[in-house]
Amino acid sequence: MSSASPSSTRSRSRSRSAPATISFEAVDPDYAARVRGSFGRQPAMHLIGAEMTRVEPGFCEIRLPYRAGNTQQHGFVHGGIVGMIADSAGGYAAYTLYPADASILTVEYKMNLLAPARGDTLVARAEVVRPGRTLTVVRADVFAVEGDREILCATMQQTLITLHRKADR
Amino acid sequence: MSSASPSSTRSRSRSRSAPATISFEAVDPDYAARVRGSFGRQPAMHLIGAEMTRVEPGFCEIRLPYRAGNTQQHGFVHGGIVGMIADSAGGYAAYTLYPADASILTVEYKMNLLAPARGDTLVARAEVVRPGRTLTVVRADVFAVEGDREILCATMQQTLITLHRKADR
Amino acid sequence: MSSASPSSTRSRSRSRSAPATISFEAVDPDYAARVRGSFGRQPAMHLIGAEMTRVEPGFCEIRLPYRAGNTQQHGFVHGGIVGMIADSAGGYAAYTLYPADASILTVEYKMNLLAPARGDTLVARAEVVRPGRTLTVVRADVFAVEGDREILCATMQQTLITLHRKADR
Amino acid sequence: MSSASPSSTRSRSRSRSAPATISFEAVDPDYAARVRGSFGRQPAMHLIGAEMTRVEPGFCEIRLPYRAGNTQQHGFVHGGIVGMIADSAGGYAAYTLYPADASILTVEYKMNLLAPARGDTLVARAEVVRPGRTLTVVRADVFAVEGDREILCATMQQTLITLHRKADR
Repeated sequence: MSSASPSSTRSRSRSRSAPATISFEAVDPDYAARVRGSFGRQPAMHLIGAEMTRVEPGFCEIRLPYRAGNTQQHGFVHGGIVGMIADSAGGYAAYTLYPADASILTVEYKMNLLAPARGDTLVARAEVVRPGRTLTVVRADVFAVEGDREILCATMQQTLITLHRKADR
Repeated sequence: MSSASPSSTRSRSRSRSAPATISFEAVDPDYAARVRGSFGRQPAMHLIGAEMTRVEPGFCEIRLPYRAGNTQQHGFVHGGIVGMIADSAGGYAAYTLYPADASILTVEYKMNLLAPARGDTLVARAEVVRPGRTLTVVRADVFAVEGDREILCATMQQTLITLHRKADR
Repeated sequence: MSSASPSSTRSRSRSRSAPATISFEAVDPDYAARVRGSFGRQPAMHLIGAEMTRVEPGFCEIRLPYRAGNTQQHGFVHGGIVGMIADSAGGYAAYTLYPADASILTVEYKMNLLAPARGDTLVARAEVVRPGRTLTVVRADVFAVEGDREILCATMQQTLITLHRKADR
Repeated sequence: MSSASPSSTRSRSRSRSAPATISFEAVDPDYAARVRGSFGRQPAMHLIGAEMTRVEPGFCEIRLPYRAGNTQQHGFVHGGIVGMIADSAGGYAAYTLYPADASILTVEYKMNLLAPARGDTLVARAEVVRPGRTLTVVRADVFAVEGDREILCATMQQTLITLHRKADR
């Protein structure tokens, strides 16, 4: 796989031995506006009522308030819609690290559904695991927010590809 | 993993050596009505305009006519919505083989997005790879229909779990 | 994702409506020798006793005769070794379609283990689902051969990347 | 999916807002001996030279010193062997939380290979993301150790199933 871009560094220590240190730099100073602009041009995110609530280098958060129209037959948010917000959060977490003239496509993602997606709001948080010139790997968790509790209801591992010199719009 | 239920058999020879022979029997004679009824109770499928067009033992097809509201920023159907119809077709392909008093949950799925989801209609076709008392593994392909051509635009591998003695409604 | 290379075509109709028609052409006339040569330079395949038994454009088969050294605690072939032969068969199925001066890396794979890997021999058969200039998507099945029966024991979906102008040796 | 066993709790806050707090309790006080015993009965782990170096509730670490016999054609550890140690570490991380009379099977796993597996030693660290009575979801990272540096070279998401009242030996 392609090597990490020089502008992005990360020291990663999951597990109990050391604190996680995650640090990315965006090469495009206007990354946040670029990411929010692209998100705003996705009718499908409007259809389900998703909102982009945080954008940082290598990180993105999307929230989905409860709507009856997004549910499956038991009244929980449909697993496919849980996948939609995880996929979008993941793609935009990667996209924060892209140059201004590049666009992004999802290559693949793998979702585990862990608990019913109930509650007032779902929140998907995605962070880049490994950035690269061609491919970027991202992880996202989706939580169901009930009052002040967050229940992990899905987790995703995803691969994105960069299309260089092909701006998003 | 749990062994195949006795009512389902399959001899499987993908590609060059022999013709595919796929044969499942549904233990519930009313499987089709049960599956279509469950699909009809999913508001999220109505939200995006998906229709269930074929149901057979171990097999399900879902169609999604083009709607501007389902697209991402380039005018193609959003990858997450491609995932929604693949996930649903897969779940219902498995559900055809379940007893009448069981319900179904998606454990996990993995999607590869292969080509832009453009065209008049998307069609997701899912078939059971391995049925089991507890877990069922399914594969689905999503095609973009342009006139009389079908372009493979996504492929999915999925795991479902059976909840016995817990009817869908 | 990148578009299919012009030298590879495929019309694909899984499911009950039409016979599968899979047809790839190799751009490198010496693809079989190149693939077999690369396989022969993998000490890890020698370690477990794997043999490459078929190579065709877009297709590869690897066989693994039973050895006690390859097992887990219950005497079946270790799931990780099932993954090794699936991953290798998949990579080489893709590699048959590559130009002579390119090499290959696995981006990711997803395996479902479906049944215990017992029997005299395991056989992994992989075929390309979607070739591309940069990325190729492959599917593989692993069967346990007991006498003249083949039992499907694992299935895999995999993504490979092409490194152009970087020959394998 | 099945709900978390009451003996396991976890508060999980990935991302930048709060420190990760991961806390599991093992229901079997002899979990470590049980896990190490099962690992010791896997000839395939001996074949490649893997060692289990840490076992904690919900966590497992496996190390693989460099051996030429484990490599692919470029001298790096074979991706399938990287998968083997990730799969094993993941399975045993889950197995720490099981009751004494249960055994474990891998349902499926998805690996992203992120960087060449070079260096003196590989280390796989796995931790439970979501424990359950029937299914457990685990995540593992594999690092290549070069001197005092650890390079993330693979990451995995995995699903395991518990076989109750079916001890491992």
